[in-house]
Amino acid sequence: MRSHYCGAVNESLLDQEVTLCGWVNRRRDHGGVIFIDLRDREGLVQVVFDPDLPDVFVTAERVRSEYVLAVKGRVRRRPEGTENPDLPTGAVEVLGRELTVLNAAETPPFQLDEDDVNEETRLRYRYVDLRRPAMQTRLQLRARITRVLRRFLEDNGFLDIETPMLTRATPEGARDYIVPSRTHPGSFFALPQSPQLFKQLLMMGGMDRYYQIVRCFRDEDLRADRQPEFTQLDIETSFMDEEGIMGLMEEMVRELFAQVLEEPLHTPFQRMSYAEAMARFGSDKPDLRIPLELTELTDVMGEVDFKVFSGPAKDPAGRVAALRLPKGGELSRKDIDDYTAFVARYGARGLAYIKVNDLNAGREGLQSPILKFLPDTVVVEILGRTGAEDGDLIFFGADKARVVNESLGALRVKLGHDRGLVERGWKPLWVVDFPMFEYDEKEGRWMALHHPFTAPHAERPEDLTGNPGEMMSRAYDMVLNGTELGGGSVRIHTTAMQQAVFGLLGIGEAEAREKFGFLLDALKYGCPPHGGIAFGLDRLVMLMTGSQSIRDVMAFPKTQTAHCPLTNAPAEVPEAQLRELNIRIKKQPA
Amino acid sequence: MRSHYCGAVNESLLDQEVTLCGWVNRRRDHGGVIFIDLRDREGLVQVVFDPDLPDVFVTAERVRSEYVLAVKGRVRRRPEGTENPDLPTGAVEVLGRELTVLNAAETPPFQLDEDDVNEETRLRYRYVDLRRPAMQTRLQLRARITRVLRRFLEDNGFLDIETPMLTRATPEGARDYIVPSRTHPGSFFALPQSPQLFKQLLMMGGMDRYYQIVRCFRDEDLRADRQPEFTQLDIETSFMDEEGIMGLMEEMVRELFAQVLEEPLHTPFQRMSYAEAMARFGSDKPDLRIPLELTELTDVMGEVDFKVFSGPAKDPAGRVAALRLPKGGELSRKDIDDYTAFVARYGARGLAYIKVNDLNAGREGLQSPILKFLPDTVVVEILGRTGAEDGDLIFFGADKARVVNESLGALRVKLGHDRGLVERGWKPLWVVDFPMFEYDEKEGRWMALHHPFTAPHAERPEDLTGNPGEMMSRAYDMVLNGTELGGGSVRIHTTAMQQAVFGLLGIGEAEAREKFGFLLDALKYGCPPHGGIAFGLDRLVMLMTGSQSIRDVMAFPKTQTAHCPLTNAPAEVPEAQLRELNIRIKKQPA
Repeated sequence: MRSHYCGAVNESLLDQEVTLCGWVNRRRDHGGVIFIDLRDREGLVQVVFDPDLPDVFVTAERVRSEYVLAVKGRVRRRPEGTENPDLPTGAVEVLGRELTVLNAAETPPFQLDEDDVNEETRLRYRYVDLRRPAMQTRLQLRARITRVLRRFLEDNGFLDIETPMLTRATPEGARDYIVPSRTHPGSFFALPQSPQLFKQLLMMGGMDRYYQIVRCFRDEDLRADRQPEFTQLDIETSFMDEEGIMGLMEEMVRELFAQVLEEPLHTPFQRMSYAEAMARFGSDKPDLRIPLELTELTDVMGEVDFKVFSGPAKDPAGRVAALRLPKGGELSRKDIDDYTAFVARYGARGLAYIKVNDLNAGREGLQSPILKFLPDTVVVEILGRTGAEDGDLIFFGADKARVVNESLGALRVKLGHDRGLVERGWKPLWVVDFPMFEYDEKEGRWMALHHPFTAPHAERPEDLTGNPGEMMSRAYDMVLNGTELGGGSVRIHTTAMQQAVFGLLGIGEAEAREKFGFLLDALKYGCPPHGGIAFGLDRLVMLMTGSQSIRDVMAFPKTQTAHCPLTNAPAEVPEAQLRELNIRIKKQPA
Repeated sequence: MRSHYCGAVNESLLDQEVTLCGWVNRRRDHGGVIFIDLRDREGLVQVVFDPDLPDVFVTAERVRSEYVLAVKGRVRRRPEGTENPDLPTGAVEVLGRELTVLNAAETPPFQLDEDDVNEETRLRYRYVDLRRPAMQTRLQLRARITRVLRRFLEDNGFLDIETPMLTRATPEGARDYIVPSRTHPGSFFALPQSPQLFKQLLMMGGMDRYYQIVRCFRDEDLRADRQPEFTQLDIETSFMDEEGIMGLMEEMVRELFAQVLEEPLHTPFQRMSYAEAMARFGSDKPDLRIPLELTELTDVMGEVDFKVFSGPAKDPAGRVAALRLPKGGELSRKDIDDYTAFVARYGARGLAYIKVNDLNAGREGLQSPILKFLPDTVVVEILGRTGAEDGDLIFFGADKARVVNESLGALRVKLGHDRGLVERGWKPLWVVDFPMFEYDEKEGRWMALHHPFTAPHAERPEDLTGNPGEMMSRAYDMVLNGTELGGGSVRIHTTAMQQAVFGLLGIGEAEAREKFGFLLDALKYGCPPHGGIAFGLDRLVMLMTGSQSIRDVMAFPKTQTAHCPLTNAPAEVPEAQLRELNIRIKKQPA
């Protein structure tokens, strides 16, 4: 029906007749003439209706916001002084000659340019919300991102292969969504948390290079950036080691940023061990744009006469570290109180600090409630290691290493933003040399840090000796500006190694057979060495569009209680349907 | 790890050293030399191990079928007389210099070249089955098909937008798979049977052109060509009428066949009304490769003294038709009995026929048990209308039109195949001018032939008068060689029309509001004219790969009882999980 998109009308079409279709963004009557800003996916253009075509004018008079119109008219230059340089179409306007109202519209529940519409309303009337230019841009960019990713992978021999959605509970650790089976009463399918095992089976099936942009499901209590269903770019390849995979993946992401944002990333990406990331940034996904680092002090605090420091320093699971904030001397008492409350969220029981007023004045030049507990030698170490200068402030964390890392790691990021220290641009890195296992205090056993199919840095099962906490895996995470974009690993490809790892995880033979029998079988019949990675597509799109919420990069997201205000899903189902499925709803206690 | 795929080793690499990775397809010891056919995704190549490298030779001696190897060696011409012209690599072989066993393999549960492995076994060991060249080819072709489709649509401005999987029961008519909600006790999500309403909402949201390759779900009793989950190429566009959509879609399919099969389809596709398709072929998805047609006889049979014909001819819902089979005189009594049994499956209570032995001999030249019931004028009409020639056989169908169409339509296809009449090549067409509604005898009410959002051939709701059975819709089906590839329609875009259609379907205001309130709301706030189509991707891939079963074009299909022999899904889930979800399993009667 149209000859051009509204947003594509510009001086190249001067004096040409165009047919446009779109929504009334705004109608103004001015000087006896009607101006309509007509909007479509590609933008806005101004259409003018003169009273000398009375029929058309009368029609134009009755249109309202969000009416859907088809307009035929001639493109002309706007009168001098009325150009709008903010609009790509702002040098021209269309003189309307024909006008058809394709559909009327009631006054929408909110204006498209309203800023503070509450999110429930936005989601309920998502079809109005999606018309906002910001949402249009985000979903268009998302489509461009998947397009570039697909093309890169296809050009590199990766095959798009679909894996089942109705499958068996997988061991990703989160809660599964389950689907009752009608034909197998009492049994349930699980919706996949990831296609991990299927992609490994595809490698065993000789598909060599696989990718899929695939929906995954987790029935978790939703945090700000989680959704019950999310999308993963899932990749697996045979006969390639971690160097090969990481190299190809950073090439892919470099290409993506170059094509979509015209901001190529510098390759090869920096590599950093997990241990180094935790030591320097308190995080396994450090935001390298923030020029603040943790300083190790555990080794010098063991003997100080201050239990808050000496306790953790002597605890093998403890850590004492400092975080120097340049010019932090400017912080007020209240600022420091606020940061103390902030780190408390991460379990820190306080936030000790030293203000460095005048280094030349010795102890007199320092200001701190804890200074009196620290001997000179320790003070010298603190100032020397942190590289403190006059005007700085040094924060301290002392607790279990986990608490110190989480609290100072988060504080580092917060200070970076609060103090305007975040550098511009993209700072990608790979975090490598992850521990194979981490000890779960609650469960009292070792857990896989990634998943139990991750290969260890060991040639043979016999090499898996010593402390499980010290074994390294062949996993790798791609991190960008503090966000984990993707994580992957080389996988275990022999039965013996897989059984050994299950053993260390306390998964007995019977349980292994019950849960992963088909995988153990498959490993026996000719499994190639293989590995892969999965990227969180929603998070990648958030990062590239600068969105604050995952809900802003999905067309029809759910609320934080996993409810869809638009369709009102989930909903009750007829009793007969439940009967067919052989289930019943449990009565709620009154 | 590899320098080349096995299947890519050819004369262009003569005298070069290559590194290959793959599976042992076969090992032969011949004349003191070991020959290994090494296989990967791209094909097979012969690797030779001489005893003059004893270490390598010893390793080669112990490999077995399906071992995973890395081989380094030099490409050389095969000795004269030993070339294999059936193999793209058959002119060369690789003289192995290094050999690493990457993984051993137990004897696989079946040989890759076994033809009659039962399907349960193939699915249980799918990772072995997928290594068969036929499965590799099919899944690779499937990936190429989606790639070409995506690129065509993206180049035409269609945006790939994801719609929810956890959603609300939709009105497609089949049984939904449902997912209990943990956060809303007693409520359930439904897995989508199609994203129909979401894609319409995207049009209302101004996305203009949408596509998605999307998983859909139907909990149906599985027939040979059905799966609980299947894949749809889903498309919707605004401001385009049926001509625009059909034109673009046939261009897409033409492009697909040209690129993937190098067999371009002739465009524009033939158009045929539903009425014509039923009249001439007894089917709304006629296979135009078969040069047989039904001949209308209802109008001449009303007065014959033969109730089997005159009854249906006088019944407004009846039909009498003939199907002429050229050279059908060759059929034996047993052949005709078999075809009579065949049409009985479609409800036909008999299969009358006339053998045309000698047209010049008048009645004497015809042979038929029913001839005596038919007056000369009628016989003349039959022979004239069918264009009968000496040696032909004419079958008759007389019953409710539905029975005649289904039985003679199926007989037509069967005769075409049995008698070798199927023409080569691709015969696409559009079936158009579908009825809006069909009467459901069981339910005693009108049902939407497509779905209730399909626009009628009527400008305004007031035009929806008269017999609902005679209203035409703006729907279109793309049919290729007897398979319905896709179906779509222009949609209703105003509240008034949607309410009128709901009314004709007996959906009252309360029910409409309860089930489709959000759609009715959305129509009010500026809905553009829009339409779309959905293609069954699995069926398209079946057709293009010449596969007989939908399970052959999916990586991990389920059996006909919706069970996965590989993972053993569906499975029981722990009681605690059901408790969290607020459901319980109903006890089965003993």
